[in-house]
Amino acid sequence: MSNVDNQSINTLRFLAVDAVEKANSGHPGMPMGAASMSYVLWKDFMKFNPQNPQWPDRDRFVLSAGHGSALLYSLLHLFGYDVSMEDLKDFRQWGSKTPGHPEFNHTPGVETTTGPLGQGIANAVGMAMGEQILAAHFNKEDIDLVDHYTYVIAGDGDMMEGISTEAASLAGNLKLGKLIVLYDDNNITIEGKTDITFTEDVGKKYEALEWQVLKVEDGNDIDAIAAAIKEGKEETERPTLIMIKTIIGFGSPNKADNPGVHGAPLGLDEIKLTRQNLGWAHKEDFYVPQEVRKHFEDIIEDKKKEEVNWKAKFEEYKAKYPELAKEWEEWNSNELAKEIFEDEDLWNFTKDKLATRSASGEVLNKLAQKIPNLIGGSADLAPSNNTYLKDLGSFSKDNRKGRNIHYGVREHGMGAIMNGLLVHGGLRTFVGTFLIFSNYMRPAIRLSALMNLPAIYVFTHDSVAVGEDGPTHQPIEQVMSLRLIPNLRVFRPADAKETAFGYISAFSHNDGPTALILTRQNLPILKESGKDALKGAYIIKKEKGERPDIIIIGTGSEVHISLEAYDILQKEGIDARIVSMPSWEIFEEQEEEYKNEILPQDIEKRLAVEAGRTIGWERYVGIKGGIIGIDKFGSSAPGDIVLKEYGISVENIVNSAKEIVNK
Amino acid sequence: MSNVDNQSINTLRFLAVDAVEKANSGHPGMPMGAASMSYVLWKDFMKFNPQNPQWPDRDRFVLSAGHGSALLYSLLHLFGYDVSMEDLKDFRQWGSKTPGHPEFNHTPGVETTTGPLGQGIANAVGMAMGEQILAAHFNKEDIDLVDHYTYVIAGDGDMMEGISTEAASLAGNLKLGKLIVLYDDNNITIEGKTDITFTEDVGKKYEALEWQVLKVEDGNDIDAIAAAIKEGKEETERPTLIMIKTIIGFGSPNKADNPGVHGAPLGLDEIKLTRQNLGWAHKEDFYVPQEVRKHFEDIIEDKKKEEVNWKAKFEEYKAKYPELAKEWEEWNSNELAKEIFEDEDLWNFTKDKLATRSASGEVLNKLAQKIPNLIGGSADLAPSNNTYLKDLGSFSKDNRKGRNIHYGVREHGMGAIMNGLLVHGGLRTFVGTFLIFSNYMRPAIRLSALMNLPAIYVFTHDSVAVGEDGPTHQPIEQVMSLRLIPNLRVFRPADAKETAFGYISAFSHNDGPTALILTRQNLPILKESGKDALKGAYIIKKEKGERPDIIIIGTGSEVHISLEAYDILQKEGIDARIVSMPSWEIFEEQEEEYKNEILPQDIEKRLAVEAGRTIGWERYVGIKGGIIGIDKFGSSAPGDIVLKEYGISVENIVNSAKEIVNK
Repeated sequence: MSNVDNQSINTLRFLAVDAVEKANSGHPGMPMGAASMSYVLWKDFMKFNPQNPQWPDRDRFVLSAGHGSALLYSLLHLFGYDVSMEDLKDFRQWGSKTPGHPEFNHTPGVETTTGPLGQGIANAVGMAMGEQILAAHFNKEDIDLVDHYTYVIAGDGDMMEGISTEAASLAGNLKLGKLIVLYDDNNITIEGKTDITFTEDVGKKYEALEWQVLKVEDGNDIDAIAAAIKEGKEETERPTLIMIKTIIGFGSPNKADNPGVHGAPLGLDEIKLTRQNLGWAHKEDFYVPQEVRKHFEDIIEDKKKEEVNWKAKFEEYKAKYPELAKEWEEWNSNELAKEIFEDEDLWNFTKDKLATRSASGEVLNKLAQKIPNLIGGSADLAPSNNTYLKDLGSFSKDNRKGRNIHYGVREHGMGAIMNGLLVHGGLRTFVGTFLIFSNYMRPAIRLSALMNLPAIYVFTHDSVAVGEDGPTHQPIEQVMSLRLIPNLRVFRPADAKETAFGYISAFSHNDGPTALILTRQNLPILKESGKDALKGAYIIKKEKGERPDIIIIGTGSEVHISLEAYDILQKEGIDARIVSMPSWEIFEEQEEEYKNEILPQDIEKRLAVEAGRTIGWERYVGIKGGIIGIDKFGSSAPGDIVLKEYGISVENIVNSAKEIVNK
Repeated sequence: MSNVDNQSINTLRFLAVDAVEKANSGHPGMPMGAASMSYVLWKDFMKFNPQNPQWPDRDRFVLSAGHGSALLYSLLHLFGYDVSMEDLKDFRQWGSKTPGHPEFNHTPGVETTTGPLGQGIANAVGMAMGEQILAAHFNKEDIDLVDHYTYVIAGDGDMMEGISTEAASLAGNLKLGKLIVLYDDNNITIEGKTDITFTEDVGKKYEALEWQVLKVEDGNDIDAIAAAIKEGKEETERPTLIMIKTIIGFGSPNKADNPGVHGAPLGLDEIKLTRQNLGWAHKEDFYVPQEVRKHFEDIIEDKKKEEVNWKAKFEEYKAKYPELAKEWEEWNSNELAKEIFEDEDLWNFTKDKLATRSASGEVLNKLAQKIPNLIGGSADLAPSNNTYLKDLGSFSKDNRKGRNIHYGVREHGMGAIMNGLLVHGGLRTFVGTFLIFSNYMRPAIRLSALMNLPAIYVFTHDSVAVGEDGPTHQPIEQVMSLRLIPNLRVFRPADAKETAFGYISAFSHNDGPTALILTRQNLPILKESGKDALKGAYIIKKEKGERPDIIIIGTGSEVHISLEAYDILQKEGIDARIVSMPSWEIFEEQEEEYKNEILPQDIEKRLAVEAGRTIGWERYVGIKGGIIGIDKFGSSAPGDIVLKEYGISVENIVNSAKEIVNK
């Protein structure tokens, strides 16, 4: 290794060590062990321009082992991104650019939010898919507008989490040859050596998942690492896993190869010993030797040229393929044309009765015609979720233009892959599964929300009305659980029309995910439902007098029985108002005036009806109001019987309303 | 194949087909394809007594592909369990013994609740561990009291879910040689042939996970299947995966090998054709030919002898090892001696300040001394979760007596393995991880609750006070999300003493899981806290006058700042009552009188304080009350700064309380 390489790698190590030390918090071990691989990857292979972290054809880098954030920030700093030495010194502090784990949209050059293990590698699968989809659409024989790699550094924790196997299995099936994962194979986890729990043959497993597997015995042998990355790039079909044997906390005489170095500062004494041990002659902390600085500046100059070349290529492309170039710009903007959502055809249906999952399928298919960069798929439930985009083909190893993704029975991987497609850019996308299985992908949903991604979750089979499949398949707590995730919009439409507005809402909302909650069972299309669903809640049936005796709030299928109850209550002299409330979050965003118009503060007699957990509905009905819901697990029987037995019925609404009014 | 074998297998097929047909709902394809393997497994290998499904040394059978429930019910019926022909005819109906997916504690002979894919295989890993733990403790050189196998039938969906890889990897590491999985390898999933998404080499993957892998090319070759199972039993170290090529919907001329046969009835016409095709001469539905009935009766007689022999063995054991025999009975009862929880030592601590996670560690260690069948572990966070049981060793391939389980970074697998340990019987157990990662294991937590298992979840690092690790690691919605799971008790103690009562509550609660929510940060031990925590909520600081001006309800670390606010409020002339409310669910179980004593209905001025989502707290404070909580994602910075910036502060409580009182 040349001296400058060695010095550069040590600079990375000590910047990370010093950042952790100053913060008195963080993970020095991983940066010390993985500095070499990251250095050679970024220096010799990665294509990027630090001055434009958004350049669409840059290579993507994912630090799946997100606890190694200090390494990533050190890389970003040295490679010229807008991460200053002050930022490094501010590691893990309030308001800093360098939080404890890498955060998308927060630090320039951070491609995705990582930390929860396994997510990054699955995001990377999505990014590699995104590259292939865009390449297939835009590349021409003479101009490759899209041609970049996705690189990952992952650790033992990533390899143990099931989500990584789900995503890697799909990556192998799809032959994502431009995905290259560097596995920081240090044999240490928090509880001890990996052999206490993790003795599987990771390489063989990845071969079984249809990956090329390469091995590097010495994590500081940058030539061997470079050769392996090169071999990874040469393999165009299989994704590549490079297993690189490293030593956690490399260089620390007393803490290397020890679980203790994973997540705690080295301490000043040990830092001193480590400096000696690594031949680092500098005593200052946060030190970048001048020759190292110069070395990186030279690299940066070279890196910048890559985007210059690409821009020239894009100009040529624009001249030759103006239509495609226009489309390129459209796809790469996050905004969709407003006119798409003004087409009444979206909320007009020929049938007078249909399950909202079926309405969803119709709307999605219409939108797919209008939004050419819309792709999506289901976790092996497309026929039930109605998520299949007709005549648009399946995305596969042989067909990169197919717009249906077959995720397999891999909900968690699916969610994280969707996040990867979205952070990659250029695409809009959705995923589908049964609402109950939102549980399987909850960490990924949370990350969609945390990253402000316009992810769309299509969750069908939304209540005990699922019926015969029984309690394992009947959602009870899921709708309210999803409402609890900050920045996630939950939309539970009452009929086909509201479903269309749910999609309009979701596709118009660019800075956060939406979960659409849809029925399995048929529902009549209501003459009363309408565009006001876009406000989150609206009066779907007005009281007859000046002031309602009671306000009944329903969502989804329960709006129907609320409307039926309305008629009976009127006959019995009770003047109700029925509010359809597809989305709490959107309703909360409305002006106070509107909110007070729908739910006037002085009308305290209220009843909420939703076939799920009641906890939370007190927000809208108060302690004195009533809630019809379900607070126990479901049962296997035909759906209408379960609904009746669980009190999700017109009769129960009528009786409860009477009780509240007469209280 | 002999005629009676053939007839028996066809009987299984047609009972399942007829049950699905009559219910007009269900999954005939799997039973038709997997009838042969299940028949030979049950007939020639499984050790059980249908008249005593609780016999502790029975072999365990898990239908991980739970949608094939009609096959399981048909097996239970023919093999003499208390599942009648009427029950089969009542498949998937209200109140029946034969729900859509197998439910533990509902149908005799059903060992675990399956349906959500991948759970069953992970449960089975727990069962196989349970067998080894009990065998190590009880078996003597001359008497093997515990010696049974765990068998699984799993499908493609099970293999795709990440949880199965997590659990299988651990099973391989632990050398659970008595675990044998029959993989119903039919190459069909709902969206089509598996090659659209699932082309990995499953056998090679399992070899990489340290399993023995055997293959059977014809799913109806019962001799080959028997030979493979035999080989699986002979391999004592590695668990065995038997990959059995089957045809989904086998026998149906038009629907076999087709995704359509997975989840829909065949239809009467196709049933007729299938009967012809399989040489089934009987026209009646739900038909068991007399010779088949006789054949099964003979088998049952043989099976019953196994328990008779075991009972004789147990009598001998009792005579030779009376102490152990007594312990055997204690371990196998679900109840723990009350005296365990009366020892004041449990809630006495030497320090005056400690994180509830540390208190948890102390209590767990004390309990482990008193509860010899208590085992547990963490998903690679034992040092942080404080879940390590000191001096009690690690459970491993070489040490079956170790009481610490190293689950690895596999939260989902861990939860499902705990469920398996508990349904196996004979053990008490807990698992630990960070609260944020409860998201990764949510499907397993739900199943603990659905199965009424006394599972204990130790969730530490319970709020933004986690600090520097940032939003990916700071729980916001987790506590309330857990409260939404029916039948799960959530317990968030305010200090070390309440932590002890949390454990007492959890270990005394035999028919449902408990989640303990614990701090990372130190907390003073309160002089005011006490045993009333066992009531879910109690007055920790009483108002001075007759009637409080306001009730402030806090949980966990927020009880402390509520108590600090109390003093300031008193000085400012506001007479508050402070309620510590570690558990909503337990509080709700109290008498109305007690509840009204703590939260008198006529005191509407209330304030809830919890460093998590506010949704839900209106249940206790009403629309007019106040809630101090957090409705956005966290931030990376030292914990005390994050708390302050997010308004989780004495100052904010004082100001909010004043505002409410003066409203």
